Amino acid sequence: MLTTGPSLPAMISGGGAETGGPGAYRRLPVAERRRQLLQAALELFSHRRPEDVSIDDIAAAAGASRPLVYRYFPGGRQQIYEAALGSAAGSLTDCFVEPPAGSPTERLRNVLDRYLAFVAGHAAGFSALVRGGCVTETSTTTAIIDQVRRAAAEQVFTHLAVERPGPRLRMAVRSWIAAVEAVSLVWLDEDRQPCADELRDWLVDHFVAVLAASAASDPQCAEVVRDVLAQERPDGPAAGLARRVLPLADAAAHLLG
Amino acid sequence: MLTTGPSLPAMISGGGAETGGPGAYRRLPVAERRRQLLQAALELFSHRRPEDVSIDDIAAAAGASRPLVYRYFPGGRQQIYEAALGSAAGSLTDCFVEPPAGSPTERLRNVLDRYLAFVAGHAAGFSALVRGGCVTETSTTTAIIDQVRRAAAEQVFTHLAVERPGPRLRMAVRSWIAAVEAVSLVWLDEDRQPCADELRDWLVDHFVAVLAASAASDPQCAEVVRDVLAQERPDGPAAGLARRVLPLADAAAHLLG
Repeated sequence: MLTTGPSLPAMISGGGAETGGPGAYRRLPVAERRRQLLQAALELFSHRRPEDVSIDDIAAAAGASRPLVYRYFPGGRQQIYEAALGSAAGSLTDCFVEPPAGSPTERLRNVLDRYLAFVAGHAAGFSALVRGGCVTETSTTTAIIDQVRRAAAEQVFTHLAVERPGPRLRMAVRSWIAAVEAVSLVWLDEDRQPCADELRDWLVDHFVAVLAASAASDPQCAEVVRDVLAQERPDGPAAGLARRVLPLADAAAHLLG
Repeated sequence: MLTTGPSLPAMISGGGAETGGPGAYRRLPVAERRRQLLQAALELFSHRRPEDVSIDDIAAAAGASRPLVYRYFPGGRQQIYEAALGSAAGSLTDCFVEPPAGSPTERLRNVLDRYLAFVAGHAAGFSALVRGGCVTETSTTTAIIDQVRRAAAEQVFTHLAVERPGPRLRMAVRSWIAAVEAVSLVWLDEDRQPCADELRDWLVDHFVAVLAASAASDPQCAEVVRDVLAQERPDGPAAGLARRVLPLADAAAHLLG
């Protein structure tokens, strides 16, 4: 439980680290120190699996003592992991916030640009968050992920100007979010190929396609698609998709009679 | 560690259960007994979280003794859980096998009918398998799930007659499979609404839509969509989708100029 450095009593209380004794760490206000510890932990969790990160690693990365880490996180690694995931989830959720300017697909492009930058910058941490399956997986971490998914869905409904999404629209949006997650993991596994811009454009196309397919059997989805299309511009993403899909109509001619 | 019933030595060896001593359980060949234990375990895991199922529960459900269960599964609950998941994964993978008759979307309907019946019949077990996040989640269980996903993707490529799926086609299929998983969980959460037939039709539409959206930016996907459409019939699922989506063209007229 002990590392070399400050005196034993100072280490146990964690006080030596914050009160400026010999070899003391830099004194920081509580909130700032907590943020700094979480930042260091998140950095580590972003590159290694949670079970491969020790309290000593986190202390070293943050330039803090092991007792200090325990003072802020008495629950140890599991508590830090959950707090770090919560912090990552917060950053991820921040990515989803987009002003209501431009067409819906242009807004979606902006959100996906930020989202993919986050994924690329926190590869291992993102995988751990989404994939689960690590030894420290608990109902708390599952709840954190589900909250991010809900936040994403709510942003989509906001931009679609839908106050009461029905079951089919919710299912369509939820399924697209699941697809984005899965594709992000494949993207990380395949050395981020295709490039982020291409992937973003495909995810936007994917979104429009799922909505359109749902519009075929659900009045609310149909209304949403009409609203979205009405706001789109001839040089925007939806128009590009429509023009590129149109040639397939020839291949479907025998079906339409 | 002990239950009442057979004599202590017989219990420890597990022999009393299989050799016909007083109060013995029915004698079964090894493979059949193993299958029976797994079946009982799977039934329990299908209705409760793994951490809520004990070895005694499994023994009781299988009409076997606790030592007998341990003789077949020395690793205890975790080993049985993984074996039961493996068995469930096998049944799920069996659902995907479909003869190459009828159009691709008709085959997909058949597969989804069997898949949704499996999901409905193994609700809790399916959730545990897909959602992860339970305390017994390990790299083994993650590998089992990933294998099911790979098997599903391979079946899709087989029916699309694609020998070497490129990155975009793989991503499209992988994302659709993720969407199916997510939608299945939502479906279970929402008391299996809409009905299985409606959900199946929507998932088929979803598949066609994602392929079509991918065709807009990838030559292989475009070729696959043309091949699929050529095999479709005027009264089949793809034709139905095309007819129902067509009215949206009006809403997109200003984009196509």
